[in-house]
Amino acid sequence: MCRWLAYSGTPVLLDTILYKPQHSLIDQSLHARMGVETTNGDGFGIGWYERHVDTPAIVREVGPAWNNRNLREISGHVCSPLFFAHIRASTGTAVQETNCHPFRHGRWMWMHNGAIAEFHRMRRELALAVDPGLFLDIEGSTDSEMMFFLALTFGLEKDPPAGVARMADFVERTGRDHGVEFPLQMTVAVTDGERLWAFRYSSQKASRTLFYSTRVDTLRALHPDVEFLREVSDETRLIVSEPLGGLPGAWQEVPESTYGVVQAGGDEIHPFVPQAA
Amino acid sequence: MCRWLAYSGTPVLLDTILYKPQHSLIDQSLHARMGVETTNGDGFGIGWYERHVDTPAIVREVGPAWNNRNLREISGHVCSPLFFAHIRASTGTAVQETNCHPFRHGRWMWMHNGAIAEFHRMRRELALAVDPGLFLDIEGSTDSEMMFFLALTFGLEKDPPAGVARMADFVERTGRDHGVEFPLQMTVAVTDGERLWAFRYSSQKASRTLFYSTRVDTLRALHPDVEFLREVSDETRLIVSEPLGGLPGAWQEVPESTYGVVQAGGDEIHPFVPQAA
Amino acid sequence: MCRWLAYSGTPVLLDTILYKPQHSLIDQSLHARMGVETTNGDGFGIGWYERHVDTPAIVREVGPAWNNRNLREISGHVCSPLFFAHIRASTGTAVQETNCHPFRHGRWMWMHNGAIAEFHRMRRELALAVDPGLFLDIEGSTDSEMMFFLALTFGLEKDPPAGVARMADFVERTGRDHGVEFPLQMTVAVTDGERLWAFRYSSQKASRTLFYSTRVDTLRALHPDVEFLREVSDETRLIVSEPLGGLPGAWQEVPESTYGVVQAGGDEIHPFVPQAA
Amino acid sequence: MCRWLAYSGTPVLLDTILYKPQHSLIDQSLHARMGVETTNGDGFGIGWYERHVDTPAIVREVGPAWNNRNLREISGHVCSPLFFAHIRASTGTAVQETNCHPFRHGRWMWMHNGAIAEFHRMRRELALAVDPGLFLDIEGSTDSEMMFFLALTFGLEKDPPAGVARMADFVERTGRDHGVEFPLQMTVAVTDGERLWAFRYSSQKASRTLFYSTRVDTLRALHPDVEFLREVSDETRLIVSEPLGGLPGAWQEVPESTYGVVQAGGDEIHPFVPQAA
Repeated sequence: MCRWLAYSGTPVLLDTILYKPQHSLIDQSLHARMGVETTNGDGFGIGWYERHVDTPAIVREVGPAWNNRNLREISGHVCSPLFFAHIRASTGTAVQETNCHPFRHGRWMWMHNGAIAEFHRMRRELALAVDPGLFLDIEGSTDSEMMFFLALTFGLEKDPPAGVARMADFVERTGRDHGVEFPLQMTVAVTDGERLWAFRYSSQKASRTLFYSTRVDTLRALHPDVEFLREVSDETRLIVSEPLGGLPGAWQEVPESTYGVVQAGGDEIHPFVPQAA
Repeated sequence: MCRWLAYSGTPVLLDTILYKPQHSLIDQSLHARMGVETTNGDGFGIGWYERHVDTPAIVREVGPAWNNRNLREISGHVCSPLFFAHIRASTGTAVQETNCHPFRHGRWMWMHNGAIAEFHRMRRELALAVDPGLFLDIEGSTDSEMMFFLALTFGLEKDPPAGVARMADFVERTGRDHGVEFPLQMTVAVTDGERLWAFRYSSQKASRTLFYSTRVDTLRALHPDVEFLREVSDETRLIVSEPLGGLPGAWQEVPESTYGVVQAGGDEIHPFVPQAA
Repeated sequence: MCRWLAYSGTPVLLDTILYKPQHSLIDQSLHARMGVETTNGDGFGIGWYERHVDTPAIVREVGPAWNNRNLREISGHVCSPLFFAHIRASTGTAVQETNCHPFRHGRWMWMHNGAIAEFHRMRRELALAVDPGLFLDIEGSTDSEMMFFLALTFGLEKDPPAGVARMADFVERTGRDHGVEFPLQMTVAVTDGERLWAFRYSSQKASRTLFYSTRVDTLRALHPDVEFLREVSDETRLIVSEPLGGLPGAWQEVPESTYGVVQAGGDEIHPFVPQAA
Repeated sequence: MCRWLAYSGTPVLLDTILYKPQHSLIDQSLHARMGVETTNGDGFGIGWYERHVDTPAIVREVGPAWNNRNLREISGHVCSPLFFAHIRASTGTAVQETNCHPFRHGRWMWMHNGAIAEFHRMRRELALAVDPGLFLDIEGSTDSEMMFFLALTFGLEKDPPAGVARMADFVERTGRDHGVEFPLQMTVAVTDGERLWAFRYSSQKASRTLFYSTRVDTLRALHPDVEFLREVSDETRLIVSEPLGGLPGAWQEVPESTYGVVQAGGDEIHPFVPQAA
């Protein structure tokens, strides 16, 4: 499948998070430990917000992340308070930029790890459910982008948890109509540039791993010598498919069937249940 | 738009046709004369049949043809009796391999120059008309691939001119429903590996250029010193968006609203009229 | 050959300069007017300085600039006070990222339009003249990168005009030893992140075009309604292979055999004469 | 490092060898077992001879082999009696086509697994030893290509084992002059389109693995039901970095410090010892 990382907090150079940690996301592109596949070499993408521009920048390429010089250059020179990074292991759809994450719609970014089981059999039915005004903006052929456009159709921009819950319900119902027992497997991150939502869910209740970083003040007490922790605000938060290494106590597992919100004024965590539209 | 070339006849190394002529297709990728755009640098593709394999090979890349070394290598070492080559100038859809021509379905290959006017507005409606069993195989986002899948839906494999005529009619009716005066502009080549059909049509009756090569026996009489003409059979035929240079008398224009068939036992040319399915 | 652009002044989003002007550099990648080639589609590169990092970021790709989405994304979200952009038309060397400009050495960036005539014949001799400690850093196979490493060898970092003058002299002498009448053709931009030097020279005294922008205060008086001119400092300066369009009075030609310096405290322009090392 | 495969014998579709076997070379690009790296995703190349053309075709790309559709298309439609395939894991040099194997010089092809230790320190000295007339043809920046051009300089085309032995000696002497204890690590395949040589050697006498296929008549007796074995001549031979799976008894290890020749009239195997030029 894939691996991803979402950062929200004090503006940092992207490479502080993407390259410098032990077992970094870029390292995971070659040697993931918790994924279904150890190699995530079928393209990558980053998306970041910048002070002066409303919509995020999205840079995607079809080669592996581990040997990409442009990714390293950008990461070493771009600072951002909120960014996504994703490395892809294709489950069959074409390796092309429009199939790489994150996906964007206006101010919104979306990325996904997992799959819709037997997606090819229900692709047409799912596509028909997408709002016709949104349908035109589907550029690639992945289940992940389809999930994004379904969630947008179902109200993601007004109420993100509800939009995702309705998308999940619709995918599950459609899947079951096609005789698929466990249609959905997902960890998803979505943001509007201010708040960040992360979801962990699967029809089988055996979801891909997802972790969030321990509160910075707690970590700072545990690791008073780690310079990075002294430089970032208490509200800084990372969400990852698979822990970055080297900092004991740094990671908490997102529970099964749960979503979290990273936001000013206090993060929250809630149960996630698909719901009929 | 684009430029394309279709060859049928005595097996030749592809580069005999793709690189060696004056004003070759590869040269046209940089300096087309008759196209809407002089540069066709948004990807290319070749497709060829080989004796031992039923389905054609299709090689497509997203960069320009003129500087592609792999294209030159393949062209210099692959012999084929029937092949397509296409150079793309994107009209807006993503530059990715799945948007490059030729497109393939089983034994069939399809390539196109032109456009469906305001395609983005009717993309969903056209997609819905594609046979659900075929819909899954649509990989890209171009109007050209959609035209192919509509023609397949409308019986291309049984009766190619009828399949294309019904596709054209459906696109025109759909376009007019959306208030588009001239919905279709096309030159199309399609083959099953044995026969080759070429179509020139546009709703406005102002179609992109299309040419076929003069009969080889006539050309041989005109140019007794041209070695290539002595080596190929009388039935060898080329169809091109734009004449290759250097051989006076070599090219005949395909008339407006016409299609031709290249086949064993005698080529034919017929009027082309869209027809209701 | 190629087209390039160098910007120094008030920090701006790169796309303000790269995409928005009429006849922008990105437009020139498809339709250059003053170049030897009208199409510059054999790769591109940008390099920019950012407040927090000493060395410039360099992003290069092998496809055309005009259809590159990542270039547009970066340009729309990165602000910089000093940046280079280059679009390439290969004169034969491989189309690969390490042959795209700008080239970097520590804090320094270099880009070039032109050629060393019959470079292949003197490549080895020129390579041998490069300082052995620098030789290891040559990654590509172009004459342009070789010129940069020769200039570094001849003291570019201490005295840029002298380093370039000695490089030019060495190339000319080497060329003449090989019987080449006019060995060097160049417009070059080089910077250390603070000052910017631009050179126009050719052995034949028939150099590729080069232009610098008129003083901003003069332009502002001419065009009081142009918002961009009100937002940038008087010291803002652009140097380009070919004028961007739309602003009468905006461009001055760099005279033949001349170099200029863009720097705090007043720009300067001087004659350029190759000189023995 | 890398993995490679060389085939000589009855003409077959490339995919018979590259894709169809268990643990095929393409599978090894994602999951090598015996390599220093399990992933070989930094580019690939194939080279094949065709009846009508003297020089081999070489197709190379920078992405991973496992997801490359063009490689699969070519492999499924090209027949050849003698071909090379190589998948790369970069040891630091740029990921670009000119650094992918095989390398070509006239009729000759070369590919390599291994490394020159501390190559960057002796790159210039090795480059100077290359025949000036050959130097111009070096396009990339790898140790592997340099070894090829040194072997050519030292007489590869007249006496391949001697050319390689002199190259090895020169690299070892140069390395030791730079204080490198074990300068050379290599398995190499080289061919002129008729005969095929394979070398296994390292300064430390701990060379990368190399295997050749058991005689076809022996294998046929062991596996009378394997159709492929009934279709190929007795002289068909494969040499591989790592055994393809599924056929017990199919592979023999090339001994340490040894080279073999695959040729009409009987293959041979000999000790390999570097020798002064």
